[in-house]
Amino acid sequence: MGVRVKNRDEILGNASSNLDRRAREIILNAIERAIEAADPKGIIHSRVKVIGEKLIIDGATFDLKSFNRIFVVGGGKASGYMAEAIEEILGDKISDGIVVVPRGTAGKVNVRFVRLHEAGHPIPDESSVKGAERILELVKGAGESDLILCLISGGGSSLMAYPREGISLEDKRRITDILLKCGAKIDEINSVRKHLSMFKGGHLAKAAYPATVISLLLSDVVGDPLDVIASGPTVPDSTTFKDAVSVLKKYNVWESIPESVRKLLINGEMGLVEETPKAGEPCFKRVHNFVVGNNRLACMAAIKELTEEGLNTLLLTTYMEGEARVIGSFLGSIAREVVFSGNPVRRPAGVVAGGETTVIVTGKGRGGRNQELALSAALRISGLRGVTIASFSTDGVDGPTDAAGAIADGSTIERARGMGLSPEEYLLNNDSYTFFRHLGDLIFIGPTGTNVNDVVVLVAL
Amino acid sequence: MGVRVKNRDEILGNASSNLDRRAREIILNAIERAIEAADPKGIIHSRVKVIGEKLIIDGATFDLKSFNRIFVVGGGKASGYMAEAIEEILGDKISDGIVVVPRGTAGKVNVRFVRLHEAGHPIPDESSVKGAERILELVKGAGESDLILCLISGGGSSLMAYPREGISLEDKRRITDILLKCGAKIDEINSVRKHLSMFKGGHLAKAAYPATVISLLLSDVVGDPLDVIASGPTVPDSTTFKDAVSVLKKYNVWESIPESVRKLLINGEMGLVEETPKAGEPCFKRVHNFVVGNNRLACMAAIKELTEEGLNTLLLTTYMEGEARVIGSFLGSIAREVVFSGNPVRRPAGVVAGGETTVIVTGKGRGGRNQELALSAALRISGLRGVTIASFSTDGVDGPTDAAGAIADGSTIERARGMGLSPEEYLLNNDSYTFFRHLGDLIFIGPTGTNVNDVVVLVAL
Repeated sequence: MGVRVKNRDEILGNASSNLDRRAREIILNAIERAIEAADPKGIIHSRVKVIGEKLIIDGATFDLKSFNRIFVVGGGKASGYMAEAIEEILGDKISDGIVVVPRGTAGKVNVRFVRLHEAGHPIPDESSVKGAERILELVKGAGESDLILCLISGGGSSLMAYPREGISLEDKRRITDILLKCGAKIDEINSVRKHLSMFKGGHLAKAAYPATVISLLLSDVVGDPLDVIASGPTVPDSTTFKDAVSVLKKYNVWESIPESVRKLLINGEMGLVEETPKAGEPCFKRVHNFVVGNNRLACMAAIKELTEEGLNTLLLTTYMEGEARVIGSFLGSIAREVVFSGNPVRRPAGVVAGGETTVIVTGKGRGGRNQELALSAALRISGLRGVTIASFSTDGVDGPTDAAGAIADGSTIERARGMGLSPEEYLLNNDSYTFFRHLGDLIFIGPTGTNVNDVVVLVAL
Repeated sequence: MGVRVKNRDEILGNASSNLDRRAREIILNAIERAIEAADPKGIIHSRVKVIGEKLIIDGATFDLKSFNRIFVVGGGKASGYMAEAIEEILGDKISDGIVVVPRGTAGKVNVRFVRLHEAGHPIPDESSVKGAERILELVKGAGESDLILCLISGGGSSLMAYPREGISLEDKRRITDILLKCGAKIDEINSVRKHLSMFKGGHLAKAAYPATVISLLLSDVVGDPLDVIASGPTVPDSTTFKDAVSVLKKYNVWESIPESVRKLLINGEMGLVEETPKAGEPCFKRVHNFVVGNNRLACMAAIKELTEEGLNTLLLTTYMEGEARVIGSFLGSIAREVVFSGNPVRRPAGVVAGGETTVIVTGKGRGGRNQELALSAALRISGLRGVTIASFSTDGVDGPTDAAGAIADGSTIERARGMGLSPEEYLLNNDSYTFFRHLGDLIFIGPTGTNVNDVVVLVAL
């Protein structure tokens, strides 16, 4: 996959000096290499090998001869492409398969043995239920000598939804909405959702038992927690019905959730309903989960490019979280230190950080977390020559905008003020998109078909 | 100056393993060395030398024979100690001097030629005005062949207050209060304050003209902006009366400020009142400003100690600003990366960051920015063995508490939960002091007599 920033020339043309232009060029190259490294097909081809009759994944070896049939299942925004690569590797060794992809994207995927099923994203629909049902049927038909290859990527949670008996899809949507709005954290939200599903939280692995399950996960969650990526259909659940109830009570929404959900959770607490599968249960004995791609892969590709450009490089973290504008300011403060003391790395320097920040919306503007991070950083690096920073989403879509992110350098603030723009006011109004659109420094890539979160690249020449 | 963390043994005793104990020990050593490096007397002795008849400061040489008299003036929390060191260096070469120190601290300073004057801090009082007046009188009496050594440190702004004619001290206090509450930034606040003063914003330098002025600044402001430290009495002011008015109008407080202030600023805008001294004016021709001590000095001392303990070290930044909990989480995310990928530095690793964060108070608890940073970081490093982080204020006082900061390691969260404490709730309630008091992991040092902001030390063994 060759990735190209669409408005490359415009971005380069906005440089105020040759040095700044060079810094922008290096960053654009790093962005393109980072996204290419997250390409689902490329990832599968580099991590999954067949040599003779051996299937080799990250050093683990499986004897293909020992399997009667091979099924391919799974879902997520990148899972169609993962299936395409798996077919290129295993070909007609695949007996059957169903992979759920976002509506309107099946046409982009070229598969022969695996059937594609389209469903709703980011909000699950009846087709999400149908997709999960078809996968469950398929794996339940598998026996002890069968292999199930499960291809999981971001978005899988909504693409494959299978509510427990008595819970409607509408109930699930309502409770997800309530949980997102009440301030609960992702692991708390998941503890509830997993207990309303017969697919998430290890249920898929349980349904597949006693077949061997190899789950290949492309992580879109910071830190790659197996049980969070697509809500962990092949991963033991460490939470209980009791935890789910506690979360709802902690955030004072126990009374506002649908009656059907409350009833199910109470029954679950009393042991009248089956718990989610737990670690140590037999159904996980033949389950192998591999994170084949994650944010670090994209960050390391950016680092490699920066190193090849002759920079002294530093990968700060791939666990970046927190409010975008604070992180942007902190990364800008690192740029200042590079310039003034040669710490933490000497010039010419390239610093990379990965993860996913958040925006606390108080204004009425338009923007994404990466654009807001870049705007905040711009204020901190203002006046520094040869210092440029870009923040972008590897899926090509930053928040509710058509840009992947934005790029800023030491001249950005001065250039903006020269155009009559107040950077502080745009930041205050969460209007980073409009700010960078005026400057021509939005980064346009278009949907990339993958997602391993965000990458920030900082260059000080 | 030998600094010792008072509750060293308690902090070491809280370690859950020998490895964690060792990490705590290294951090405590680094904290002590960092604060020692910021000792005002030590700083003056290391930066100011007299060799024969030459006064040498940071490579600049002044011929003492060319001066008729030497006066020592200035003010700030550390300025008394700076004066003591200057006396040890220049002795009876000093003709006279007045240095303003916080009320109740003059007794700790041993001077013979310089007179100490006590005044109010952090709120200026009539004695602040008297102190500034005495300094202005002294420097106005100096001539072309005299040298004025000006010793400036944090707190100088309130210790030396000299309102313009028609402005009362109460007016100045009110407007400072209004500016702090309206959300204006420090440079905006200063643009107003400087225009209400006949001491700040370069006025002291103007009063001293045509004497030679050597200003030694111990910086308590992130990034060491000369015109912000103690409001820059010997530094050209880059702002105008017009700017001051704009700030007050921008934050919609123009109508709520005292009538006297509004009148002065309007007259200033119309050119009826003298502007603050500007760059290029003759009065700055003989003015030499030196930042003799700052946050980087403390950070580098911490780095030196970590290196001597055998760690691979990294100074991230000395420009750290922003919300304490977000920065703490980000630093914790760097610790995770160190552990899981050996980036940005291999274990055993020591990472240092300096600056000053802020707390957005929404809860009713007790805490300081360093304690809140440490609590937030604790949540991010939970479960990591041999990983410890401490954040502390070099002045020994973190926010409105008696602790300098707090220390946390990979066992902190588990230990807290074992005691029935919810770290998330303490963080939500801005109650980091109570949290760490329960754990015995507050860092007690007591007032250190210096201030070069905060230092965060992170160790991963």
